[in-house]
Amino acid sequence: MSSVLEQLATSSIPTERSLPPYRLASRVLHPEDTVINVGDVAIGGNEILLIAGPCAVEHEGQVLAAAEAAKKAGATILRGGAFKPRTSPYDFQGLGEDGLKLLDKARQQTGLLVVTEVMSEAELPVVAEYADILQVGSRSMSHFRLLEALAKTDKPILLKRGFQATIREWLLSAEYLMALGNHKVILCERGIRTFDSEHTRNTLDLSAVPVLKAQTHLPVIVDPSHGTGRRDLVIPMSKAAVAAGADGLMIEVHPDPSKALCDGKQSLSPEELLSLVDAVKPLAMACGRRFGRG
Amino acid sequence: MSSVLEQLATSSIPTERSLPPYRLASRVLHPEDTVINVGDVAIGGNEILLIAGPCAVEHEGQVLAAAEAAKKAGATILRGGAFKPRTSPYDFQGLGEDGLKLLDKARQQTGLLVVTEVMSEAELPVVAEYADILQVGSRSMSHFRLLEALAKTDKPILLKRGFQATIREWLLSAEYLMALGNHKVILCERGIRTFDSEHTRNTLDLSAVPVLKAQTHLPVIVDPSHGTGRRDLVIPMSKAAVAAGADGLMIEVHPDPSKALCDGKQSLSPEELLSLVDAVKPLAMACGRRFGRG
Amino acid sequence: MSSVLEQLATSSIPTERSLPPYRLASRVLHPEDTVINVGDVAIGGNEILLIAGPCAVEHEGQVLAAAEAAKKAGATILRGGAFKPRTSPYDFQGLGEDGLKLLDKARQQTGLLVVTEVMSEAELPVVAEYADILQVGSRSMSHFRLLEALAKTDKPILLKRGFQATIREWLLSAEYLMALGNHKVILCERGIRTFDSEHTRNTLDLSAVPVLKAQTHLPVIVDPSHGTGRRDLVIPMSKAAVAAGADGLMIEVHPDPSKALCDGKQSLSPEELLSLVDAVKPLAMACGRRFGRG
Amino acid sequence: MSSVLEQLATSSIPTERSLPPYRLASRVLHPEDTVINVGDVAIGGNEILLIAGPCAVEHEGQVLAAAEAAKKAGATILRGGAFKPRTSPYDFQGLGEDGLKLLDKARQQTGLLVVTEVMSEAELPVVAEYADILQVGSRSMSHFRLLEALAKTDKPILLKRGFQATIREWLLSAEYLMALGNHKVILCERGIRTFDSEHTRNTLDLSAVPVLKAQTHLPVIVDPSHGTGRRDLVIPMSKAAVAAGADGLMIEVHPDPSKALCDGKQSLSPEELLSLVDAVKPLAMACGRRFGRG
Repeated sequence: MSSVLEQLATSSIPTERSLPPYRLASRVLHPEDTVINVGDVAIGGNEILLIAGPCAVEHEGQVLAAAEAAKKAGATILRGGAFKPRTSPYDFQGLGEDGLKLLDKARQQTGLLVVTEVMSEAELPVVAEYADILQVGSRSMSHFRLLEALAKTDKPILLKRGFQATIREWLLSAEYLMALGNHKVILCERGIRTFDSEHTRNTLDLSAVPVLKAQTHLPVIVDPSHGTGRRDLVIPMSKAAVAAGADGLMIEVHPDPSKALCDGKQSLSPEELLSLVDAVKPLAMACGRRFGRG
Repeated sequence: MSSVLEQLATSSIPTERSLPPYRLASRVLHPEDTVINVGDVAIGGNEILLIAGPCAVEHEGQVLAAAEAAKKAGATILRGGAFKPRTSPYDFQGLGEDGLKLLDKARQQTGLLVVTEVMSEAELPVVAEYADILQVGSRSMSHFRLLEALAKTDKPILLKRGFQATIREWLLSAEYLMALGNHKVILCERGIRTFDSEHTRNTLDLSAVPVLKAQTHLPVIVDPSHGTGRRDLVIPMSKAAVAAGADGLMIEVHPDPSKALCDGKQSLSPEELLSLVDAVKPLAMACGRRFGRG
Repeated sequence: MSSVLEQLATSSIPTERSLPPYRLASRVLHPEDTVINVGDVAIGGNEILLIAGPCAVEHEGQVLAAAEAAKKAGATILRGGAFKPRTSPYDFQGLGEDGLKLLDKARQQTGLLVVTEVMSEAELPVVAEYADILQVGSRSMSHFRLLEALAKTDKPILLKRGFQATIREWLLSAEYLMALGNHKVILCERGIRTFDSEHTRNTLDLSAVPVLKAQTHLPVIVDPSHGTGRRDLVIPMSKAAVAAGADGLMIEVHPDPSKALCDGKQSLSPEELLSLVDAVKPLAMACGRRFGRG
Repeated sequence: MSSVLEQLATSSIPTERSLPPYRLASRVLHPEDTVINVGDVAIGGNEILLIAGPCAVEHEGQVLAAAEAAKKAGATILRGGAFKPRTSPYDFQGLGEDGLKLLDKARQQTGLLVVTEVMSEAELPVVAEYADILQVGSRSMSHFRLLEALAKTDKPILLKRGFQATIREWLLSAEYLMALGNHKVILCERGIRTFDSEHTRNTLDLSAVPVLKAQTHLPVIVDPSHGTGRRDLVIPMSKAAVAAGADGLMIEVHPDPSKALCDGKQSLSPEELLSLVDAVKPLAMACGRRFGRG
């Protein structure tokens, strides 16, 4: 590793003042947008993606129902956590590989791509076996060994912003992936921690979207479910994210949010997901883009 | 004052758990939206307002040119600071009453309403003589004596959010105005202070818009100029604010931003203001609303 | 005003890189510590001051008992709020001038100096009539008209840090006072707003003490009562403040904290105040300083 | 793992309101202080520990000189990073196992215990071979797989606070270690991220010390080097930390700070470390405790 990095660090790249330390992620040397193709999905293209699915994979019925709801709403990618980072050791920690198998089943049934979180480099082989896109969670954005391991796969990485990370730090985490060989990085804004948490779980930083569009050529998506923590805020903030220029939305949906083992308060029902699509589509069109499929 | 407040504090209003301490500002006892009419402008109605003008009133040519630009772009209200709160005593402090007179001249010439900041209850009489709407700046949101004085006027109050105020504190400042007699309160989100200030001056908290729409019946507008501090972010964040449900936008415009005495980096040129309108209008329509006039 | 400031802004003071914008408050041009003498009290000298008293003046018995407790513990200055800035209009707002008269009575009885808050320039004449030291509260640190009015008095100003203010902004507020004529400024750290408020009301920023000691020649005191919001944390944080180099402590004491109309949870009983003094004295001595009197 | 946790989660422990979710870390069921013995060092006892050493292990001369300086100053534990988490992939990443070998050599030469960071469970075996105490860095506090792996070792864990972690989250990370079998947890406050970073790298939250002392029975130490990022603030904040009740100080020392590959600005020279000891000792004594050895 070090020799590649040393070469990059001392390479004859023009070191003018405007080149930020995240030189590969930066737009300075790569002005055109990066579009990442997975199957028939182009991430960062004209289509604004809908990624939907449950917070955690709980059981077959739940994940299949959620996947069907996602598909019906026009999603192209199914989200769902099998390995779950939880603040308390006493909370539900996910189904592990069994959850991955259920995601695989849902993929076969719906044709959706699967994105799921990998928490640790030890888990990477098994997660990579099942996932089309590997997610780095907010608490892992600065887990550099994990980034180094992910850099060696050829799967796209959905890199969530650390809830306490500056945009500079976030792009430097992307740079870890890119400098070590994986340029298929998707950035996902999911809310930052501020002084006010009475009404929202996090503060969704939508200005990060146009800031990133200026700084980097990588695709940028937004997760308004974690970003707000409240079902009733997901639709307005989805609309706002698209208006701000996001390349995709990541939405939690659950066949019965009141029974969710994880983050039920921020999960939409299948009907609410359809309402979201109805609300967002005209905005995407007004921005000259498509939202989802069908 | 105290007797009115004591009465309110102990009145037979149902004290169910869901009634927040800002009982007059709350939607619980006042479910329908408040619409504030000033001249022919309805604040909080179907029309999304455009409020535009320079950060500070500098001289006659500047304010008249900015007012013409605002008018041409479809604004109904002219903004402009005559009394300027500045972090440093050595910075330009505004023209004072001379600035108010220039705003008055611009109003006569364009027919726009005028909103301008009042920093202190001692200045209130002179500012109220010229302003149609009185602005409370971010640093004055908890200046309770000023709020008490403003509560006794019959002019609408544009109450900016303190840059580190919680939504609860903000609504309690609105409650000061309302409890003491002035119910014409307009809330203005203008960005909060967070840990990241490398790329933006503040973090524009757009989730505050739907949160406020749930908590209160008062109109909510957004100031993306102060909220971001960067000209190139004003248009995307204006679009996002409208998509999030804002009832108006407050935009800094200057005939020559590079020569502005205050906040030039976040001011649009007249041409850029027209581009903003072109970009925002289709989004407003997609939300079933109008943006500005003409 | 403007001519004085213009002169200062353009004066022939060496503008080397290291001179901060708060040039009068800065140590660069004024290396020696400022000591402010009021009566027989030297603020910023070897003696670490004890300022004690109730959050709010409630009634004669309360303020006299608190003053006696303060005196007995070795305080030289009595604190107490007569005009109270409160987040909600429905909370107790202070006794106003009646409260000032009670503070005066307590002063006559104990010989303590009196510090009390002034919220507005309109209240300044009456407050200045009774107070030995004028306090600017945390929410008023950027209330520039108040600072300008205070600059014209000859009384020392205790300038609390805005809970959202950077050290730069705080010193620029001090600069308002100094540039307009009042150099008797005492800085008071009282906690800042951060992301964690479960266990403490604010985060007491003790590193501000040595940072200020490097940046400015003005005296620096600490308020661990507001800084923590918890009675049981006042003693350890008082010890820490003295160890960090504070020139004084401002402590809330109430004859019966459980009955306080304001901030009872952070008020010490008279006995607890004596324990504080017992705990802090050896630390002050270990730092080569005295703490309080007697 | 899950069966142990399930048992704990549903065990007959009294679930009264006051029992926090970090039940094993809490003082409620374990009122007496935990003292962790390693060699002849008692962590959490009367002696306030001095842990000192370089930010990163660079070469043999550097680490041996730093270790000698630490020993001479009365330290019992040598710190030093061999595996370094760095924000940028282009920064010095540490010497890896070679660095561990140098720490081992320094231990043999000085008799000091060694604490060093482990970034990943894959690195745990090699780090555990050399370290007496395993450090979890600020960015790894919520790296739950690493915590699970560390829970299975019998070495004490020095758990740094995430720079944007609440005290609740921090104690829940300690709970991961304890619930899975390792009760030898040392908490280390190292500064949190706030809105002001002009003068300090982080805001050292010293009120966390007495808050933790109330919440948990685990030992608490403070790192004023990372906590402030400035050499000149290390001594005053060390004094303040001891006054606040810390059980130890973790200090960066480098034989030539101006040449340090990492964090030179916050590293003390050997002479400055001796000054720190001279300054802190009288304060420790004033608190009825000893500081360091000799």
